[in-house]
Amino acid sequence: MKKLKISIIGATGYTGKELVKILMNHPKVELVYLTSSTYTGKNIYEVFPEFLNKLDKKLTNLDSELISQNSDLVFTALPHTVSMDVVPELLKKGIKIIDLSADYRIKDPAVYKEWYEKGHNKISENLLSETVYGLPEIYLDKIKDALLVANPGCYPTSIILGIAPLLKFKLVDPQDIIIDSKSGATGAGRKLSLGLHFSECNENFKAYKVVKHNHIPEVEQELTSIYFGGDYNKQTQQGAGIKISFTPHLLPINKGIFSTCYLNLNNPKEEEEILKVYQKFYQNAPFMRIFEPPNLPEIKFVTGTNYCDIGFTIDERVNKIKVISVIDNLLKGAAGQAVQNMNIMSGFPETEGIN
Amino acid sequence: MKKLKISIIGATGYTGKELVKILMNHPKVELVYLTSSTYTGKNIYEVFPEFLNKLDKKLTNLDSELISQNSDLVFTALPHTVSMDVVPELLKKGIKIIDLSADYRIKDPAVYKEWYEKGHNKISENLLSETVYGLPEIYLDKIKDALLVANPGCYPTSIILGIAPLLKFKLVDPQDIIIDSKSGATGAGRKLSLGLHFSECNENFKAYKVVKHNHIPEVEQELTSIYFGGDYNKQTQQGAGIKISFTPHLLPINKGIFSTCYLNLNNPKEEEEILKVYQKFYQNAPFMRIFEPPNLPEIKFVTGTNYCDIGFTIDERVNKIKVISVIDNLLKGAAGQAVQNMNIMSGFPETEGIN
Amino acid sequence: MKKLKISIIGATGYTGKELVKILMNHPKVELVYLTSSTYTGKNIYEVFPEFLNKLDKKLTNLDSELISQNSDLVFTALPHTVSMDVVPELLKKGIKIIDLSADYRIKDPAVYKEWYEKGHNKISENLLSETVYGLPEIYLDKIKDALLVANPGCYPTSIILGIAPLLKFKLVDPQDIIIDSKSGATGAGRKLSLGLHFSECNENFKAYKVVKHNHIPEVEQELTSIYFGGDYNKQTQQGAGIKISFTPHLLPINKGIFSTCYLNLNNPKEEEEILKVYQKFYQNAPFMRIFEPPNLPEIKFVTGTNYCDIGFTIDERVNKIKVISVIDNLLKGAAGQAVQNMNIMSGFPETEGIN
Amino acid sequence: MKKLKISIIGATGYTGKELVKILMNHPKVELVYLTSSTYTGKNIYEVFPEFLNKLDKKLTNLDSELISQNSDLVFTALPHTVSMDVVPELLKKGIKIIDLSADYRIKDPAVYKEWYEKGHNKISENLLSETVYGLPEIYLDKIKDALLVANPGCYPTSIILGIAPLLKFKLVDPQDIIIDSKSGATGAGRKLSLGLHFSECNENFKAYKVVKHNHIPEVEQELTSIYFGGDYNKQTQQGAGIKISFTPHLLPINKGIFSTCYLNLNNPKEEEEILKVYQKFYQNAPFMRIFEPPNLPEIKFVTGTNYCDIGFTIDERVNKIKVISVIDNLLKGAAGQAVQNMNIMSGFPETEGIN
Repeated sequence: MKKLKISIIGATGYTGKELVKILMNHPKVELVYLTSSTYTGKNIYEVFPEFLNKLDKKLTNLDSELISQNSDLVFTALPHTVSMDVVPELLKKGIKIIDLSADYRIKDPAVYKEWYEKGHNKISENLLSETVYGLPEIYLDKIKDALLVANPGCYPTSIILGIAPLLKFKLVDPQDIIIDSKSGATGAGRKLSLGLHFSECNENFKAYKVVKHNHIPEVEQELTSIYFGGDYNKQTQQGAGIKISFTPHLLPINKGIFSTCYLNLNNPKEEEEILKVYQKFYQNAPFMRIFEPPNLPEIKFVTGTNYCDIGFTIDERVNKIKVISVIDNLLKGAAGQAVQNMNIMSGFPETEGIN
Repeated sequence: MKKLKISIIGATGYTGKELVKILMNHPKVELVYLTSSTYTGKNIYEVFPEFLNKLDKKLTNLDSELISQNSDLVFTALPHTVSMDVVPELLKKGIKIIDLSADYRIKDPAVYKEWYEKGHNKISENLLSETVYGLPEIYLDKIKDALLVANPGCYPTSIILGIAPLLKFKLVDPQDIIIDSKSGATGAGRKLSLGLHFSECNENFKAYKVVKHNHIPEVEQELTSIYFGGDYNKQTQQGAGIKISFTPHLLPINKGIFSTCYLNLNNPKEEEEILKVYQKFYQNAPFMRIFEPPNLPEIKFVTGTNYCDIGFTIDERVNKIKVISVIDNLLKGAAGQAVQNMNIMSGFPETEGIN
Repeated sequence: MKKLKISIIGATGYTGKELVKILMNHPKVELVYLTSSTYTGKNIYEVFPEFLNKLDKKLTNLDSELISQNSDLVFTALPHTVSMDVVPELLKKGIKIIDLSADYRIKDPAVYKEWYEKGHNKISENLLSETVYGLPEIYLDKIKDALLVANPGCYPTSIILGIAPLLKFKLVDPQDIIIDSKSGATGAGRKLSLGLHFSECNENFKAYKVVKHNHIPEVEQELTSIYFGGDYNKQTQQGAGIKISFTPHLLPINKGIFSTCYLNLNNPKEEEEILKVYQKFYQNAPFMRIFEPPNLPEIKFVTGTNYCDIGFTIDERVNKIKVISVIDNLLKGAAGQAVQNMNIMSGFPETEGIN
Repeated sequence: MKKLKISIIGATGYTGKELVKILMNHPKVELVYLTSSTYTGKNIYEVFPEFLNKLDKKLTNLDSELISQNSDLVFTALPHTVSMDVVPELLKKGIKIIDLSADYRIKDPAVYKEWYEKGHNKISENLLSETVYGLPEIYLDKIKDALLVANPGCYPTSIILGIAPLLKFKLVDPQDIIIDSKSGATGAGRKLSLGLHFSECNENFKAYKVVKHNHIPEVEQELTSIYFGGDYNKQTQQGAGIKISFTPHLLPINKGIFSTCYLNLNNPKEEEEILKVYQKFYQNAPFMRIFEPPNLPEIKFVTGTNYCDIGFTIDERVNKIKVISVIDNLLKGAAGQAVQNMNIMSGFPETEGIN
């Protein structure tokens, strides 16, 4: 069988590197171009000695012409507001794209501009309506036919998957949702920053961007859509859009996101009942694991995997439900989910290469 | 001046060790007995080589007779449900006691029994009414005259100090309080446990005791008292007692507690206004530091100190206030606060030896 | 093709767990029995939730009869001095065994008894001569036909592979070898120990067993054999046996061994020359990666892999060579190497399932 | 009593910050100027919120005129090769200086130039002969009268103190010394560097600068001087200068240096005998703690203290002695030792403010 030809734009960030690791062992694909603006011309094993004897591949610069001619599908692993300058050109050459930035996740360009402080140009804006939000547990069918998939953010993946069933079945108050998330240090990427130095993060814990983290609009868009079953923009314009209170924190570990979600139950429920709701909602989702109370997931259960592990407990004293949702931020929160999307878009088994 | 004679019951747990460290350098006290059931007969520097050349002191067994005859004040750093068997006897000999267990924190013996699964005997129960809850920022005057001080738990210290001003001035809804706390590993003590092994905690993060952590009744008792200005038992019997939703998590660091508190503002407020409320409430408290928004405390700012650092932010989008309160769990959360209480009980400057 | 039937004795230690992880995905084997004395009767995913949805397997007790009847090959992952009570019985039923303890690594039973403080019985002692030391890079051919393989220790694997070429070609003084090794915390296993608690290891570093670590005789036996090309016992009796100075240290990380080896060059050499010696010595070894100076391996390059990465530098100022050898202690240092041995014993590709 | 007026040049590096922490609580000094090129104009608590409520001090730029007029003693905590441009000017104004860079540690300007790749100008070079190497356990009397003290490097402090007694009494071969050192991440300073990012250091361990670390000449100069009892330059020119094999490694912890030193005993010795040599050598040194075999120091015993802890073991099998020497790199390895020097230069008790 002919292998799918894959290129990765931005192969030397943490996410790009993880994509390379997965795809070099994926039985149905072949890596064509790996680009890196910082390390153009070097072999990938010179940048990451982990690849020694495993992958022999030169890093190239971003030549859209060459890449589109020789690839079937391209992963763009670029920073927010940079991806939008690259994606349209690649897309018009007729190849498929999975974009790992935030640039195509937000349907409403005005909302994007408000939170990311840069607007789309006309061509890019036109792509928004046909982009599919790449959360397979919610949008499996749309992803199958997508040309451009916006791969979800790490926090949003853990949050949306964590509470979607509760909202879908209207078991909770949609207007009082508190999300307390904790992320490992790779979540911040490989940019130089004193705050990310070992001596600054180690033996420490802190909150950051406590009110205005730019993953909020993405989460709210999707939760609104799940709850109201319809169009986010319309609901939001009518003032019905869901608003969450979200607080991200920095954990002194390499990988993993742990979201503790607090919601108010509309009616008292047994844990058994809620368990069934989750099990049914995710019955066909190979990467979802629902823990039976009182068991709860921990970050180490998912590190190095594409699983999203979910557990919950009902706090009867205050009629709240606490949901814990954990993922590996570089896998289910980025590269793993991107490959899951690629598998779905290409007709491969959903778990191929990420099992 | 004659020095205050101090003994420590349980000197080789993490809290006991921290007490020794502080008191050996305290200019106004003298260490008399250090007891340890596990290491009786050894010198403390044989158990903790950190004390080499600094403290030369044999660990003894618990001889109440001897200890009370030769001490002015005793710290009991024993496990919950063990302390209650030791405190009454010491107390009747006329010495002062600062108890670091939970045994005398809960005013209502029925509530204690419900959460700690052991009841007080008659003598011990009678002590509850005269015990002072040793949170100096709230009970300064009572502590001055106390014979028995119940030193607060680590989580309760961070939580109560974090939100007391908001409740005292009725700025928030007292019936919708969510506390998401994270603690370093010393919080669990020095008992053998596979779950506390390095390889189990490191690169991990998890929640534990998600609904029934036994620090809850202590927090609720004090918050109720602060809010209603009166008697916890009465309020609670009338169904008005405050109930919190509390979730503790285990951080892969040695020391520190970080509590993220979510409350609903009764009315929209400016951050400037809230700041003034906090500053006024804590104006005479030498160990409270209030951060001006948008600055927020981090665990490393308080590690090794007796400070409680507090910061907050108003999430206008959802009309909530998020308060962050951090302490060193072994200092302001245990031994440091105990010495602060000792200073107050003894007429020493409040910050002596813990500055 | 019929799959090889495998059982694992001691499946819930760190090494046993790692074996399960590898073998459950190995395309040519089938797991039959997993035994655990501590968790008999539980499903493995109840002990390690990581296995949820991936492996559904009850842990059994050690029934040699049943296991040998239904297995082709058994891994014994038991503590030192325990394995010798189990292996002979299994072996006489005609199945192959890979023993991960130290019990069959030392050829001379007197030496074993000296270092491990327990002697072999007659039957067990008789097995020593036919046991093959399972270091494939040195004993590939013998392993192919072995019935009983003694899987090397973690430190010995890193040390022997690190300096074998220098000794084999007599480039260094065999009587002045200093090995300074550092190991992650999983190296100590899952037994309860206060010294392995998070708060004790974290932010710390220490040496342990600085003179009498029981991996020494194993290393000296193999180095002697490599250097003299012949019989360890004879050389040693003649006083020619190699003696090393070995110091293990405990690193505050989960996995990895890093050995810094100091040797005196017999004659000044160029690094280029030494590089060729290493490259040639390991030319057919799929898990050896030799770094070209001045590049050096780091622990993170091998974490999660079966590689042994080797780098070196010549310190011309003092005519010494420093060799750095790193492995993942649970993989190339234990479970990974054991599967490598299984592959070789079974005629599978050497890298199958551990690539 | 009038307080000693102190300024710190470079107060916002890790070492400068540590100096501020110590000196703000030192009863006999007063802080006058704290300079910082990066944060000029800010208050120190804006850069390090740890200082909130504790120190209220603006950071200034480096105005030598002002500083020398208003200070009795200045600490220069600047990078190597930068200090030499600042020290001469300050010194000629008649104030005392403790320089924490390497610039005045090496007596031979040619050696300095070889290892640091920059030469001294004439004025600066002339200072070398009158500079005192600030290791109080060796040069106590000279430090008392010094005007310019070169504060030792962190590795050199641990190494020289670790093996000085063995060399002084000629118990070991001076020409076969192997030093395997491990340092926490603050050792690398606060400069931006991807290699120092949390995700790069955490769960990793590596060697660096394996042959040419620039602390080598400093160690060799001092060891030669101790062994030959005389002039380093002369010995070295005659080819007798001691040469060490030194390998530094990076530990994933914040603070601490651990040096494992391997030396060959000239004659077999009992540990008891060696112990006495060390105890006598350091009998008047308040910050030296000698561990009785088989006890050995660990990094955590010295973290946060100015102690240098030393332990050793004799490896009779190979007639070597292994010495372990541990310090806190920011205290005894930098700021603590600098204050110890200040105390000695100023006639204060040696341990004042660092006890």
